[in-house]
Amino acid sequence: MAELQGFVFPRTATGRSSILPAPPWHYSGDLLTIEYRTDPERVIELLPDPIEPADDPGAVALVWADWQSCSDTFDELLDPVRAQYKEVFFVVRGRYQGEHVSRCVYIWVDKDYALVRGHYQGYPKKLGSIHLTRPVAYGKAGPRLEPGGRFGATLAAYDRRLAEARFTITGTADQGGFVNSHAMLHTRFLPAIEGAQAPPSLHELVTMKTVDVDAGPVYVGDADLTLFDVPGEEFGRLAPREMIGAYYRQVGATFVGGTTVHSYDD
Amino acid sequence: MAELQGFVFPRTATGRSSILPAPPWHYSGDLLTIEYRTDPERVIELLPDPIEPADDPGAVALVWADWQSCSDTFDELLDPVRAQYKEVFFVVRGRYQGEHVSRCVYIWVDKDYALVRGHYQGYPKKLGSIHLTRPVAYGKAGPRLEPGGRFGATLAAYDRRLAEARFTITGTADQGGFVNSHAMLHTRFLPAIEGAQAPPSLHELVTMKTVDVDAGPVYVGDADLTLFDVPGEEFGRLAPREMIGAYYRQVGATFVGGTTVHSYDD
Amino acid sequence: MAELQGFVFPRTATGRSSILPAPPWHYSGDLLTIEYRTDPERVIELLPDPIEPADDPGAVALVWADWQSCSDTFDELLDPVRAQYKEVFFVVRGRYQGEHVSRCVYIWVDKDYALVRGHYQGYPKKLGSIHLTRPVAYGKAGPRLEPGGRFGATLAAYDRRLAEARFTITGTADQGGFVNSHAMLHTRFLPAIEGAQAPPSLHELVTMKTVDVDAGPVYVGDADLTLFDVPGEEFGRLAPREMIGAYYRQVGATFVGGTTVHSYDD
Amino acid sequence: MAELQGFVFPRTATGRSSILPAPPWHYSGDLLTIEYRTDPERVIELLPDPIEPADDPGAVALVWADWQSCSDTFDELLDPVRAQYKEVFFVVRGRYQGEHVSRCVYIWVDKDYALVRGHYQGYPKKLGSIHLTRPVAYGKAGPRLEPGGRFGATLAAYDRRLAEARFTITGTADQGGFVNSHAMLHTRFLPAIEGAQAPPSLHELVTMKTVDVDAGPVYVGDADLTLFDVPGEEFGRLAPREMIGAYYRQVGATFVGGTTVHSYDD
Repeated sequence: MAELQGFVFPRTATGRSSILPAPPWHYSGDLLTIEYRTDPERVIELLPDPIEPADDPGAVALVWADWQSCSDTFDELLDPVRAQYKEVFFVVRGRYQGEHVSRCVYIWVDKDYALVRGHYQGYPKKLGSIHLTRPVAYGKAGPRLEPGGRFGATLAAYDRRLAEARFTITGTADQGGFVNSHAMLHTRFLPAIEGAQAPPSLHELVTMKTVDVDAGPVYVGDADLTLFDVPGEEFGRLAPREMIGAYYRQVGATFVGGTTVHSYDD
Repeated sequence: MAELQGFVFPRTATGRSSILPAPPWHYSGDLLTIEYRTDPERVIELLPDPIEPADDPGAVALVWADWQSCSDTFDELLDPVRAQYKEVFFVVRGRYQGEHVSRCVYIWVDKDYALVRGHYQGYPKKLGSIHLTRPVAYGKAGPRLEPGGRFGATLAAYDRRLAEARFTITGTADQGGFVNSHAMLHTRFLPAIEGAQAPPSLHELVTMKTVDVDAGPVYVGDADLTLFDVPGEEFGRLAPREMIGAYYRQVGATFVGGTTVHSYDD
Repeated sequence: MAELQGFVFPRTATGRSSILPAPPWHYSGDLLTIEYRTDPERVIELLPDPIEPADDPGAVALVWADWQSCSDTFDELLDPVRAQYKEVFFVVRGRYQGEHVSRCVYIWVDKDYALVRGHYQGYPKKLGSIHLTRPVAYGKAGPRLEPGGRFGATLAAYDRRLAEARFTITGTADQGGFVNSHAMLHTRFLPAIEGAQAPPSLHELVTMKTVDVDAGPVYVGDADLTLFDVPGEEFGRLAPREMIGAYYRQVGATFVGGTTVHSYDD
Repeated sequence: MAELQGFVFPRTATGRSSILPAPPWHYSGDLLTIEYRTDPERVIELLPDPIEPADDPGAVALVWADWQSCSDTFDELLDPVRAQYKEVFFVVRGRYQGEHVSRCVYIWVDKDYALVRGHYQGYPKKLGSIHLTRPVAYGKAGPRLEPGGRFGATLAAYDRRLAEARFTITGTADQGGFVNSHAMLHTRFLPAIEGAQAPPSLHELVTMKTVDVDAGPVYVGDADLTLFDVPGEEFGRLAPREMIGAYYRQVGATFVGGTTVHSYDD
């Protein structure tokens, strides 16, 4: 009999097959954040007890991110199919023990390790096909990071387009939005193999710790956003009523772990 | 505050966004099973306590499967991008409480819902690109399900080929192998958000229940198999020493749940 | 200096790199054909001189095909990622030298060799993501080839869904439609490197020869069809006004070449 | 009868369905160029009459490119799935009418419009899966464009890895290699529908015109390169004997057409 090794599955005698290496995980990438207000009831219905509604409860952030990420060996950066991925996610806000928290309610990525990493962190990830215009410094086939720069951003899954946005830089700002700026408070959940009528095998609220945050200027601008209704999705319930702002920023950060703040089976 | 619904994440007020519907899950597909013996120590090192070595402990099954699956609404069958997927998996045997069990130690699929469904069932799934020759009834571009029919099967991930096999039907048989024929005994595992040094948040042995098994003839034949060494994988430790047999069969079945047989944090 | 070899590019000293081997090309697959009538003017506007309008000029066939194909070595069938592909195509009818002809006006496939093979044959192929429910013989996750069997079929490209259809078998018939049943009359066209204002470098009408046709029963049924308007496509001009019929059939055939029937630069 | 419109196929009454818009085509992207010498006979065997061997005939450039491109409407940049693509290509040199020329002998891209655009320009394109590490300005998950910056680059097709390279910046230079720096001299070739025994329908040598070239600094460095032998490819005949140099550069350019310099059927 063996003592199996590995941060997650598949766990083996050596631990080398795990779909995820152990943290820390380093990230560098470009983020487009679009903030808007929706019907507050549609946000509040996504906040499980004991999370309470935030001030300005209808605020939503929809974020496109074009990442490279790697483990502490940095090996993935030399086999970039293992390092590059993109994601799109909806973030709302709540309040927990008197403090505002951010909470990802829908998210899509395009690689399996990023999917499982998200499930470990309480992100409810699905796979999608994601595109975001990249800024360029030379030639005519891309925007510059300066006023007038225009970007497109799209999300698709299962051969249907789910969302698309356009963004035009108008200037710079001191900060890049307020919805995705608090500590994340996520649910990790897995039903029992006996099914939904049994108590879940995993049901926790967790928060995460990020260090070594490094970021470029915040470019602000005008955005428009279209959400499509498709089977098996209900992000359309978060339809925009009023735009707040839009921000483009290049960032880096390192994930070093987190804390279980609530276990539902206590 | 909301009572969130949904079999798994993302959980919402309605439950409609869950990446997986609740069981039962129906399956119909074609399976190519190649059985062989490897170094028994390489199998035993993959059996966590309290699973004990099987008789004939070095026996391995490598299975290619080309599936359609759906929920009890059958809706996925009318949007086939949601119903069709392929998978490849290695199965070994152990013994638990005196009975032989089957255990999947490595597995790849090509859709997100199948990945998460596997994680729910304790299959250590990664994403891969999987192909299996299909039998045809007309024309020259495919084998017939009869002696002389030749099939190819491949597995790739992260832009590298991982495994390939060829199979030629020689006749029929009463049964299709013995390695993948016992009750499955799988590990469900997720580390704590605090990291690998903390006790895992989920660590169970589960078994599964399948009903309404429906299957066609077992076609037996000759197979050859090549496993490639690639970074991040170690299935090459299960290198064939001796072929046992190879089988092609069309099957149907319904998954209706399972039983938690051991919890490591008791 | 070398005498370059190879059926098409890249051409080399040995000819082994060609994206396409020389014919014959063998095909086996499943076809869903939906026939309907559209505004006849929308068909006639797609018929270049000297092709004349057909009788019943508004008839259109939209076909989903799930293929295996291979060269005369049959090697591709043992590496099925090289043999399996799917396609969707619109066919209309015209009249040439007094005879009815069939003409493919829009088509999508999911492999590069099939794309270039189509361009060689005058099919105006683009890449797409294509799915078609497969009939099964066992289990609940697929239709049987018998009355009541229900199929879904979808087409997507560039992260947008383009078309979807549903089909239910009601019985069998002697033949499977009349729109895609004549000799194909296709245009092979490539502008000069000098651009569109120069005479094209290639501008021909060709027809093709298929032998060893082998086919199963024709299953007829009811279908509904939805075409979506997307940028860069105009198949929506061929919107259905009246359904004619729908047919599912398993077929095999071998392409052995063709004949140039008209050269526009003569 | 219609006068069909469109730069290439599918050609229609409006011309809007063409897989390619008419030039000009704008490009912005990042290029990694690795130059080395192979057996000169392996290059000379790829030069069709009337192209003669170059001085230093064994020199080869292998280039990874991560592009955005668009038409003169710039619309593609706002739907980036239509603008972003990657390619890998081998370039050799020859001599034509006394002048050195560059010639692409093998190339892979990951989008259909780029594939057909290449065929129009005489690039012998196939589809592949291509990855190249991106430089970043923030965080730890990517190299900086400065000495010590390390990049990986990979190419795969049909579920097999074909080539991989690693590059480390050591400094800057005035120019970025000499193999891919001459006028391109490409073959446009398509056999007759009657087959390879008939005269080809298209057989030309063309050259191309690029304007508005805009480029950043040339970063030079050390590279290693691995080419894998796979079925259906023979780029392995161009195995490196001696490395010349490696260069990373961000560039922009606009393609405006070309000139037919030789027609083989004259």
